[in-house]
Amino acid sequence: MSPSPSLPSALVESLRSLLGPEQVLTEAIDLVPYGFDGTAAMKQAPGAVALVRQTDEVGPVVALAHEHGIPLVARGSGTGLSGGSVPVPGCLVLGLNQLNRILEVDPANLTILVETGVITQRIDEEAAQHGLFYPPDPGSQKIATIGGNVAENSGGLRGLKYGVTRDYVMGLEVVLADGEVVWLGNRCVKDVAGYSLKDLFIGSEGTLGIVTKVLLKLLPRPASRRTLLATFAQLEQGAQTVSDIIAAKIIPCTLEFLDQTTIRCVEDFSKAGLPVDAGSLVLMETDGAESVVAEECDRMMALAKANGASDIRVAANEAEALSLAAARRSAFSALARLKPTTILEDVTVPRTHLAAMVKAIAQIAEKHHLEIATFGHLGDGNLHPTILTDERDTEEMERVEHAIKDIVSQALAFKGTITGEHGVGLAKKAFLRQQLGDASHTLLKRVKHTLDPNGLLNPGKIFD
Amino acid sequence: MSPSPSLPSALVESLRSLLGPEQVLTEAIDLVPYGFDGTAAMKQAPGAVALVRQTDEVGPVVALAHEHGIPLVARGSGTGLSGGSVPVPGCLVLGLNQLNRILEVDPANLTILVETGVITQRIDEEAAQHGLFYPPDPGSQKIATIGGNVAENSGGLRGLKYGVTRDYVMGLEVVLADGEVVWLGNRCVKDVAGYSLKDLFIGSEGTLGIVTKVLLKLLPRPASRRTLLATFAQLEQGAQTVSDIIAAKIIPCTLEFLDQTTIRCVEDFSKAGLPVDAGSLVLMETDGAESVVAEECDRMMALAKANGASDIRVAANEAEALSLAAARRSAFSALARLKPTTILEDVTVPRTHLAAMVKAIAQIAEKHHLEIATFGHLGDGNLHPTILTDERDTEEMERVEHAIKDIVSQALAFKGTITGEHGVGLAKKAFLRQQLGDASHTLLKRVKHTLDPNGLLNPGKIFD
Repeated sequence: MSPSPSLPSALVESLRSLLGPEQVLTEAIDLVPYGFDGTAAMKQAPGAVALVRQTDEVGPVVALAHEHGIPLVARGSGTGLSGGSVPVPGCLVLGLNQLNRILEVDPANLTILVETGVITQRIDEEAAQHGLFYPPDPGSQKIATIGGNVAENSGGLRGLKYGVTRDYVMGLEVVLADGEVVWLGNRCVKDVAGYSLKDLFIGSEGTLGIVTKVLLKLLPRPASRRTLLATFAQLEQGAQTVSDIIAAKIIPCTLEFLDQTTIRCVEDFSKAGLPVDAGSLVLMETDGAESVVAEECDRMMALAKANGASDIRVAANEAEALSLAAARRSAFSALARLKPTTILEDVTVPRTHLAAMVKAIAQIAEKHHLEIATFGHLGDGNLHPTILTDERDTEEMERVEHAIKDIVSQALAFKGTITGEHGVGLAKKAFLRQQLGDASHTLLKRVKHTLDPNGLLNPGKIFD
Repeated sequence: MSPSPSLPSALVESLRSLLGPEQVLTEAIDLVPYGFDGTAAMKQAPGAVALVRQTDEVGPVVALAHEHGIPLVARGSGTGLSGGSVPVPGCLVLGLNQLNRILEVDPANLTILVETGVITQRIDEEAAQHGLFYPPDPGSQKIATIGGNVAENSGGLRGLKYGVTRDYVMGLEVVLADGEVVWLGNRCVKDVAGYSLKDLFIGSEGTLGIVTKVLLKLLPRPASRRTLLATFAQLEQGAQTVSDIIAAKIIPCTLEFLDQTTIRCVEDFSKAGLPVDAGSLVLMETDGAESVVAEECDRMMALAKANGASDIRVAANEAEALSLAAARRSAFSALARLKPTTILEDVTVPRTHLAAMVKAIAQIAEKHHLEIATFGHLGDGNLHPTILTDERDTEEMERVEHAIKDIVSQALAFKGTITGEHGVGLAKKAFLRQQLGDASHTLLKRVKHTLDPNGLLNPGKIFD
């Protein structure tokens, strides 16, 4: 990891007296864990790390960094997959994990107010105790923080029916670039009082402000749920089944896809009993009223059969359903065991182009002689082609770069997006202008300049 | 109506040669219909009106206004209820109603692409032909345009279950203050490539840019629907029933409330057979799978009975359901017949404060010796207390002002919002700072200045 210039001692002293000496890290060995996130082949040590314990400490820390002109990179658990929380040299990393209190549950108004460092899965667990439901469930939900989810506008396995993090954020406490604290949004389910600045901060990847508290909408918990797994001999049969389900106007909660490489890795890792000879596998989950669930389940089974499914398995009980979903959730970790470097892409296409996109990825892998495993939230059109490689092999890494360009160009040719749920960060910024066009790209920069005129908040992310 | 300074003749000539002479209005008599919207007691003639026929004419018109430093006020059908499209003296009004083409329906991807002047109801009618559904249904859906809905982030009767306009906008073509055209968003159901500028423009009331095309998300059309009407002797019984339904974790599609004055006016207007002696009336609508609809219907009836409903009527068929919903939709028009001036408020509160807010409005009416009829989207906490008055009676209008202040203060004391779905415009801007606080209010202005540095787009709306 590249070393970093250290921070001005006056700043470090101010931080120590503000937060307590044990909350400010400056030794090289202590900085290592803060030098990377979940993204392959990206690391950089920060100048120092400040760990806050109270939300009202964030404003003063940001004000100090602002005063000293020091770049600030906020982070939660660092599970991001686009380099969004990788430090820049000489920056202060702001660690938010200790802001982990659930501040209020309001079952009558269907809301929950939490600090930014609360682990995502805990929010749904808390909701469940009141018969309520927090649907967004990114693959990293057991470890990622809600603040990180807001920064990236995270999706998850249930996005098809239930949407993404943005759809649940009713209010945000945000610390602006100069340390000022603002509250955006409120407890009303409808509100049109002024521009929706809350929506501007959601998905802004820490470049416009630091989120310290989040007010979330909850839903009534669905009464029942059914999970099924369809196995296909061919890659495209699975993809076509997903397109057919959407076209038949069924919107189940989950439609996940795994190709053969992913199936084998996951089975090896999870021992969930997946059919390792299958060409593709689709995990379907429907939830809601019992009668509707049963009917949707039947219709999806019929469509899978029509597309030549070789086997369809319905989870007999909740334990089996959880085990199947957990197997899917382990896809990234399972693939990461295969090769030293795992580069996860996140292209998304309109759903009618799904089968063609899956096929194109396989062709791109062949063209560049690379191993690419593909899985993803196929119901959303969101694919995670995962390149299994070794960053020390410079020749192969060149081919990887070419393959990524080909995948992105193909997605954009299908009017897709370079990133469905992981964010732009460092990993995708080279492609952003190609997607947005010059005028929109320039507009983003103008908004950034307005909210962070000195460019100190997570510099170099999204754009240069 | 106050006359307006006329526009520079060079500008008028350029507009005429660009659009054709018949598309540019400058005669006082021709300007009258463009001098007001649906908001009481607000009118101002514009300097001229330019009517565009093609979306690609909007950029050049905006560029001309920008070049001449002339304020620009865009409008659709002018059904707004916060003065959002009332001209300023010496402005050019940009009439968008002729941009009324449905450009594309894509049933497989569940999207529809329309021009900004398409009438909202037509979108759902078009969707229905493909078995699809465009849920947002503002009271004005038969006449309002989708562009106006986007500008105000309009709600409607189905907002409780289906959300508001924002929840369906996937993409926007927007003309910026200098005439440049940008496309924001895309056809993917998930996309995190850069800040969500689309969300910034939704609800920006024509102050940041002019929307010319809208890409909307559609849903599968619900299989069945049931409409019921519960009658209560007391005002608060109806409000309490709504709070109880939400607390019982039922989220029907519609929960509408009418107080006695509104019931009488609506019945007089619509002859739908409403019980004119009732103290309050709740219109409930549930949709989805038949079995679920039946069960939700039963549970809501039980809660209405528990709150002392004197009568519960289930619409026997679709015609009766439509007639009941149409009666509710006519509330504003029906009330407007009673007195020369009808001032419609739009406060929204967290749903647990509904009964208290309804009661407080009745007390405020009594205190100021005013007639206030209250109806609204009670399931959303969104009330429309409607003051029946006469703008020529200056003494009464003073009491009206005091009553409005009291209503707004009470809503804010309940952590509510000054506007749930009508926008800030001219009517609410005096209260915006009180709701948002200084820091957020200043932030809005900074964003406005970034996107419209010369302040020419719909000046004086939202803030001064």
